[in-house]
Amino acid sequence: MRTIQLTDRQKKIIDIVKREQPITSEAIAEKLSLTRATLRPDLAILTMSGILDARPKVGYFYSGKTALNFFSDQIKNIKVSDIKSVPVIVDEETTVYDAIVTLFLEDVGTIFVVSDGLLTGVVSRKDFIKSAIGGVEINKVPVGVIMTRMPNIVVVESHESILTAAEKIIEHEVDSLPVVEKCEDNGKMGYKVVGRISKTNITRVFVDLAHND
Amino acid sequence: MRTIQLTDRQKKIIDIVKREQPITSEAIAEKLSLTRATLRPDLAILTMSGILDARPKVGYFYSGKTALNFFSDQIKNIKVSDIKSVPVIVDEETTVYDAIVTLFLEDVGTIFVVSDGLLTGVVSRKDFIKSAIGGVEINKVPVGVIMTRMPNIVVVESHESILTAAEKIIEHEVDSLPVVEKCEDNGKMGYKVVGRISKTNITRVFVDLAHND
Repeated sequence: MRTIQLTDRQKKIIDIVKREQPITSEAIAEKLSLTRATLRPDLAILTMSGILDARPKVGYFYSGKTALNFFSDQIKNIKVSDIKSVPVIVDEETTVYDAIVTLFLEDVGTIFVVSDGLLTGVVSRKDFIKSAIGGVEINKVPVGVIMTRMPNIVVVESHESILTAAEKIIEHEVDSLPVVEKCEDNGKMGYKVVGRISKTNITRVFVDLAHND
Repeated sequence: MRTIQLTDRQKKIIDIVKREQPITSEAIAEKLSLTRATLRPDLAILTMSGILDARPKVGYFYSGKTALNFFSDQIKNIKVSDIKSVPVIVDEETTVYDAIVTLFLEDVGTIFVVSDGLLTGVVSRKDFIKSAIGGVEINKVPVGVIMTRMPNIVVVESHESILTAAEKIIEHEVDSLPVVEKCEDNGKMGYKVVGRISKTNITRVFVDLAHND
């Protein structure tokens, strides 16, 4: 797993800079018994790739980056707002049965539940299976009874990076996250649901990045 | 979305090579009214990054790559076998109820169904919800009745890249794929299930790559 294959000479340059930063190109050339002209392509590659920082009249610094971190830089620039899907939302009073129908009509894995417009819970396919086989009267019981309730809900905001979203999904072992905006309603603080980020969105970004979209 | 920011001069070089390939560095230098020495760092960057191919005594070719494709190269080298999970498998005669219990015990989204050791179907959480609310006698009916049956199952093999797996997941709108090995059993061709690749695996790779693991 790597992006650019560095040459041995480039690796030596990185080692020198790590040890002696800041260091000028003259000094690096001297240590390697090479001319500055010979080193120029290597230093250009290392600075363009962000592995070294060049500061005029000071010298080269090691940035702490490795080649692989290109990917990291790239996805840190993609925001949740760039890829979020439309959320599927029901009211807390909706019956479990109606929520299941919504789940199938919208073909989503998770439904967000609100009360007075603010996020109060999340229901997943797993919750629905449990209810359906667990003797819950799905035609009568409201979804609010079976949902996972605030504050036990992991959320993400539009301005956060998709890497943060993916990390939350993996860490908390959930299929999707509500994308929320903090808001105040009659003095009550809460979250308005403005989107949805799921493993599907992340998988789609993965494929799109590979295809250079 | 990009990895390396190319300079204007590098973009000009790419344009020249696209138009006139194969072309020597002398010829490129002449077109830009620059010396070969001046161009050397740019050509080094463009060939190291794989955007140009250099063939000795012939000249430079355009590879068709853009900087972003580093990511593509990288993930093409990760195989399904590198990240696959253990598959959860039940026999076709298992009742729907027992299959649901297995789903919860193993905490997976999809169960693979076999008969005589060969893959015959796939059951997802959606299938289970449908059965549970659709009046199926889940304690009696075997999972074989409600599953999606071969040949309508999208599979992947261990040697394929995770990009291929992610593409299949997105294209066919499924949550996971059985990782299979072709095999022959008493003259009957079929698939043995050797693993599982889900959107969770892809999301985890996404996070790991960003953290440079």
